[in-house]
Amino acid sequence: MTITQPDLSVFETLESEVRSYCRGWPTVFDRAQGSYLYDEDGHTYLDFFAGAGSLNYGHNNPVLKRALIDYIERDGITHGLDMGTTAKRAFLETFQDVILRPRDLPYKVMFPGPTGTNAVEAALKLARKVKGRESVVSFTNAFHGMSLGSLAVTGNAFKRAGAGIPLVHGTPMPFDNYLDGQTPDFIWFERLLEDSGSGLNQPAAVIVETIQGEGGINVASAEWLRKLADVCKRWDMLLIVDDIQMGCGRTGGFFSFEEAGITPDIVTLSKSISGYGLPMSLTLFKPELDVWEPGEHNGTFRGNNPAFVTATATLDTYWADGQMEKQTIERGNQIEAALRTICAEHSGASYRGRGMAWGIEFEDKSRANKIARRAFDLGLIIETSGPESEVVKLLPALTTTPDELDEGLRTLARAIRETA
Amino acid sequence: MTITQPDLSVFETLESEVRSYCRGWPTVFDRAQGSYLYDEDGHTYLDFFAGAGSLNYGHNNPVLKRALIDYIERDGITHGLDMGTTAKRAFLETFQDVILRPRDLPYKVMFPGPTGTNAVEAALKLARKVKGRESVVSFTNAFHGMSLGSLAVTGNAFKRAGAGIPLVHGTPMPFDNYLDGQTPDFIWFERLLEDSGSGLNQPAAVIVETIQGEGGINVASAEWLRKLADVCKRWDMLLIVDDIQMGCGRTGGFFSFEEAGITPDIVTLSKSISGYGLPMSLTLFKPELDVWEPGEHNGTFRGNNPAFVTATATLDTYWADGQMEKQTIERGNQIEAALRTICAEHSGASYRGRGMAWGIEFEDKSRANKIARRAFDLGLIIETSGPESEVVKLLPALTTTPDELDEGLRTLARAIRETA
Amino acid sequence: MTITQPDLSVFETLESEVRSYCRGWPTVFDRAQGSYLYDEDGHTYLDFFAGAGSLNYGHNNPVLKRALIDYIERDGITHGLDMGTTAKRAFLETFQDVILRPRDLPYKVMFPGPTGTNAVEAALKLARKVKGRESVVSFTNAFHGMSLGSLAVTGNAFKRAGAGIPLVHGTPMPFDNYLDGQTPDFIWFERLLEDSGSGLNQPAAVIVETIQGEGGINVASAEWLRKLADVCKRWDMLLIVDDIQMGCGRTGGFFSFEEAGITPDIVTLSKSISGYGLPMSLTLFKPELDVWEPGEHNGTFRGNNPAFVTATATLDTYWADGQMEKQTIERGNQIEAALRTICAEHSGASYRGRGMAWGIEFEDKSRANKIARRAFDLGLIIETSGPESEVVKLLPALTTTPDELDEGLRTLARAIRETA
Amino acid sequence: MTITQPDLSVFETLESEVRSYCRGWPTVFDRAQGSYLYDEDGHTYLDFFAGAGSLNYGHNNPVLKRALIDYIERDGITHGLDMGTTAKRAFLETFQDVILRPRDLPYKVMFPGPTGTNAVEAALKLARKVKGRESVVSFTNAFHGMSLGSLAVTGNAFKRAGAGIPLVHGTPMPFDNYLDGQTPDFIWFERLLEDSGSGLNQPAAVIVETIQGEGGINVASAEWLRKLADVCKRWDMLLIVDDIQMGCGRTGGFFSFEEAGITPDIVTLSKSISGYGLPMSLTLFKPELDVWEPGEHNGTFRGNNPAFVTATATLDTYWADGQMEKQTIERGNQIEAALRTICAEHSGASYRGRGMAWGIEFEDKSRANKIARRAFDLGLIIETSGPESEVVKLLPALTTTPDELDEGLRTLARAIRETA
Repeated sequence: MTITQPDLSVFETLESEVRSYCRGWPTVFDRAQGSYLYDEDGHTYLDFFAGAGSLNYGHNNPVLKRALIDYIERDGITHGLDMGTTAKRAFLETFQDVILRPRDLPYKVMFPGPTGTNAVEAALKLARKVKGRESVVSFTNAFHGMSLGSLAVTGNAFKRAGAGIPLVHGTPMPFDNYLDGQTPDFIWFERLLEDSGSGLNQPAAVIVETIQGEGGINVASAEWLRKLADVCKRWDMLLIVDDIQMGCGRTGGFFSFEEAGITPDIVTLSKSISGYGLPMSLTLFKPELDVWEPGEHNGTFRGNNPAFVTATATLDTYWADGQMEKQTIERGNQIEAALRTICAEHSGASYRGRGMAWGIEFEDKSRANKIARRAFDLGLIIETSGPESEVVKLLPALTTTPDELDEGLRTLARAIRETA
Repeated sequence: MTITQPDLSVFETLESEVRSYCRGWPTVFDRAQGSYLYDEDGHTYLDFFAGAGSLNYGHNNPVLKRALIDYIERDGITHGLDMGTTAKRAFLETFQDVILRPRDLPYKVMFPGPTGTNAVEAALKLARKVKGRESVVSFTNAFHGMSLGSLAVTGNAFKRAGAGIPLVHGTPMPFDNYLDGQTPDFIWFERLLEDSGSGLNQPAAVIVETIQGEGGINVASAEWLRKLADVCKRWDMLLIVDDIQMGCGRTGGFFSFEEAGITPDIVTLSKSISGYGLPMSLTLFKPELDVWEPGEHNGTFRGNNPAFVTATATLDTYWADGQMEKQTIERGNQIEAALRTICAEHSGASYRGRGMAWGIEFEDKSRANKIARRAFDLGLIIETSGPESEVVKLLPALTTTPDELDEGLRTLARAIRETA
Repeated sequence: MTITQPDLSVFETLESEVRSYCRGWPTVFDRAQGSYLYDEDGHTYLDFFAGAGSLNYGHNNPVLKRALIDYIERDGITHGLDMGTTAKRAFLETFQDVILRPRDLPYKVMFPGPTGTNAVEAALKLARKVKGRESVVSFTNAFHGMSLGSLAVTGNAFKRAGAGIPLVHGTPMPFDNYLDGQTPDFIWFERLLEDSGSGLNQPAAVIVETIQGEGGINVASAEWLRKLADVCKRWDMLLIVDDIQMGCGRTGGFFSFEEAGITPDIVTLSKSISGYGLPMSLTLFKPELDVWEPGEHNGTFRGNNPAFVTATATLDTYWADGQMEKQTIERGNQIEAALRTICAEHSGASYRGRGMAWGIEFEDKSRANKIARRAFDLGLIIETSGPESEVVKLLPALTTTPDELDEGLRTLARAIRETA
Repeated sequence: MTITQPDLSVFETLESEVRSYCRGWPTVFDRAQGSYLYDEDGHTYLDFFAGAGSLNYGHNNPVLKRALIDYIERDGITHGLDMGTTAKRAFLETFQDVILRPRDLPYKVMFPGPTGTNAVEAALKLARKVKGRESVVSFTNAFHGMSLGSLAVTGNAFKRAGAGIPLVHGTPMPFDNYLDGQTPDFIWFERLLEDSGSGLNQPAAVIVETIQGEGGINVASAEWLRKLADVCKRWDMLLIVDDIQMGCGRTGGFFSFEEAGITPDIVTLSKSISGYGLPMSLTLFKPELDVWEPGEHNGTFRGNNPAFVTATATLDTYWADGQMEKQTIERGNQIEAALRTICAEHSGASYRGRGMAWGIEFEDKSRANKIARRAFDLGLIIETSGPESEVVKLLPALTTTPDELDEGLRTLARAIRETA
């Protein structure tokens, strides 16, 4: 805790009780650069949270910053609804050339509004429209957003209760490795599907995260994802991969599902797609699903052109070759090695993850929050996740240097020791 | 239409069929300044649409631009979730000092995510949570957003159908002047409320726009709004004013409901709150309604700090005194005079509006689209609204000069003549 | 109240608190014949309630009783599911010959289960299936049953609350004469239908009672019903007349809608269709609506053959000519004359009705219950209805003699006087 | 098939396409006595269906018949709504003395309307009201009725589709032995309950059949039922046993759950409760759950007094001592022996059951229907069940004599042979 008390008064008196992160990190941040945040009292914080995965390229990345300022300086279109703009065209062309074409992905691109939940709502609407069915299957501990459509396929009971209405049309299925490790994958889901007496409303779609970030860094294996894709195909359900947190390179490849070799029917992207932390999201889908009527879904900020500019810059800068993916895997190895050591030293600790998304869980479920608090005091921003906030979640920027990673992992180890 | 065909190919091949405005304005915009848009072929367009009301202070307003670039240059926090930041604190303090306190409005401020539909979803959730009831009353031709919660209180059948599930928990009531002009206001609504056999599920809240922008520039009178506030009070329903399009000075006062002298329980703001076209929204509510648990509603981009910076600048620049309101009313008078002349010259034309939100309707419902198309060819960006796109909608920036207004109104008059 | 206290103990200790009529009539009934009930202590009660309209031909009508006993004696099929039986065939043939053919009604006949709510559930399912839409319009103060489908189109807030889930897919519209007497019929309903921005989900059907029995003996005029039929036709909605309480001759003609000259798409019958108070119901519909798959709706007791036997006997006995209708209208005139006199003598009293369904309402809404209680003490069984039980409801058996009617009306007049 | 074609014309022309059993048994039944049905052409049919379990005491059981005729002859109350009657009092007292008290069951008794689905609807309403939650868990291949509330917890996709609206608020769980025989019971259900991130809406109740009759004679073991009761208790969910088909002695004890030694919170009874095939049903619940307001649930035929008379007679005649249970178990042994022999002779055949509810399943799923058809030709009424009608279901009356059983089982064996 800082010695000089930060002036938090207006947050405490004027801002709603709903505020949350500011409670765990009781200071006032002022600047940020790369992997570091700086508060107004001059304290420095290494960021292992990266805007919940929105800042894969670090804070105020200089390449993107240059592009952004140039665009603003020259009075480029800022707010464009879904009008054609040069910034949007550049983004679309680059996204096609750098991302879709090399991966042989046939997707159409929709700008559903600039937030993740907009992208999920659009994906669910489209799936229901295409299939003419209401029901959607999601997974235990899924997180897809806070608006009613997305919330209905989100697992967290506390957040669901906030809806104030019963959330329906969604059915949860067990995520990979959810049960006892013995029960065969999809045995329950497939029995429900094949049995016309099962009582399951035939789903329009299945929505899944390849790694559940909010759910506790639960990692679906490539094999499980392939089986899921196969189940969807055999039972005429669309497969939606919500890649909002795990896409844009977080796990290595641009899309987190690349490793599994599957091609989802619909993909949602947001968080790090603009690269600079600016609101932007995409809903991608196979061309045969593009049954939208003009304007059937819209949104005021779906044409956030400054975000298109920085998004285009990230693609050109980081994705024109395979370096980014390679580097993320190396950094992931560095993280894993450190976590292995930590868990070896602390009984009851286990870790899991992929690319640069990792979690450590302790048998004592209250431990994670204590660690995050202690880490903050030690100058490390790190968050918890999981239904009981029982998992310490590592989401450093992909651009974090090996030295920075090392620094943060050492701080984390210390916070773990000091909360034992 | 431009002589050189603009290169629209990537929009047509890669972007989803859902795109809409770009169809009516088939060009590629590149720059914008104040009241004007410029396409890449050098054509100039006077903007009477202003980002559907998101650009009340004009495109790339130089004061806001300066503040924005300074903030980016100095590596101010860009993406802040709901962490405390100096930019957020400055916004909150300024919003309190410049907006809330002078109007004696007691609201708490929530950052529900950066789009209008996020703000509406949060408002509906909160109302339902506070009252423990599911049902919400909305009005004919209401527009509140595209995510499922907001869509359920939106009137447009085409957009509702996009949901792919039956939209429930909402009941429409007649907006001001919806029926025959004879039927007393609220006679139906109040009978339903007072009769325990009516079949209406007791509503948690009523959500209303003071002027329905998307619905066709339908203007609720101050008296009707006061009666509505009274109905809500007497029947224990929360009154939510969705001021996303009509707030931020569009009708004169900062809030569109000021003229009626009412204090809604919950208010949503978005579109022009950042002033620069950057995604931002607020949900305001009376302090006794602030029953949120920390994190019960959240959103990745709810802390879009660059938007806070420009928002603060708009408040300091335009709202520290009463000039803006006065100017808007003067500009409104200028518009009204021109519309009066137009309607006098065209039988079957009528107009309505308030402040700088106006609509012209023609008996021939297909006329409005023809006018908007012709206006585009003449260099004027203007949109239609209403359930059958039968209303030409005027939403120029509040900063439009009298000369620019005059130019646009003359172009509009010409487009009307040329489509007769 | 009886002098010897009846033995009600098992009802009070073992039967659920949900019991209701037995509270207002605290005695133990033992026998019944024609218009009279007899309790075990030898008291006689004239019955102006007739099993809530289920005993139009009186208690234990001797003609029906003979047919019923003969059938039981000869071991006729009792429980027949939907197997072909001689009793069912006789009923179907008679229903066709005596009821449908003379009225030129083209209906197919469905046995949806033996209660009214079964018939309504089947009607709603069929309408939704035929039209492919979920929404159904009902009317203020409608009563259609207690299972979830029927309850969702029932107005009473107290009964709706019993559902324990939010009741959706139904929208109430104002019944005839519901508003101020000035507002044109259907102005609101038609505006909603014609305006694609109204927010009303396009209904599959409209369900209506011609006289709302539970709702307070609210009488729809023939003209209003014709307008409603026309609205349904013009807007492609099925018209369902719920004739459970008002059919089977209660208002004069066999169907209550005959007077209006309309042919509903679907009709529900129950209560007095068996004539003997045995559970039975029918759902009738135009042949082009018969899109049911075999067994798509079913029910264990849909083949209650003893009820078919008594039903057939009622048709042969009472409906082979026009005498019944004529007699009911005469008896109705007798009732109306008495009510006119009563209301002339009691300020604040008004009456309404048709055929042999009548109601008296008092300005003092608590009066009706006092009257019913006093009437019971005076040996008259009479019930209240309306959302606040503010209406004394007269539903004597159609077979009540003029002298019996006179006796009951005099007792009623006395009960009114004595509660003044 | 009969040689003289039965006159089925009115069924084919006037009755709805929804009719079903009459298609498989294309004759016109006229009389019935004990275990036999007789058609109008003089053919005799041994009944192994017993009104889908509604005729546990055989057709037109002479003891009940005598009581019924006596009651009708003496003009006992026929239709009694929920008024106190001597017939109802006698039933309640006898039910308490003969059924509840000896089993130490504390239940309050509700008359929810005379059909099974009425009883289930009331049970679900009550559970939701008590717990203040909407969600109810049911099981794969459950059957609970055709009205919307019951249908939402029924498994059959074909019947669910008939609803015409999406059925919500229900979640299916695997019934006993549903998966691979390896997966531990309730592993999935309990994980969902204990994990606050699972996405399962916390259920108000679990509804279960001890043997799923319509679902294919799926037998829950006593141990599984005990575990289920324990899960319900630990997770604060009410346990509803739907004993409509398996109660009233079908499996041996009066209630089918007696063998497991559990005491459900709510129990539904119907089908054989009247004993004579007359519509009647009960909803039983623990006294602390009796939170109904008077009249909060009602129904016109909930006081079907002739059914109370025969119901009382069944209790006095068959349940005053333990003979009935003993006899049913003996008869069950006789059936099992025969089925064992049959299955030994036919590869791919298996059987299961308990008491006098048994099923035979064949690997060839189309076989069951062929057997039932052939059996009919051979004078045996027998039905199929299961999601694909793949199970031959034996539900003979409990009063079937050993010789009759033997006759039917031999006919069944022949039908199986002849369809091989």
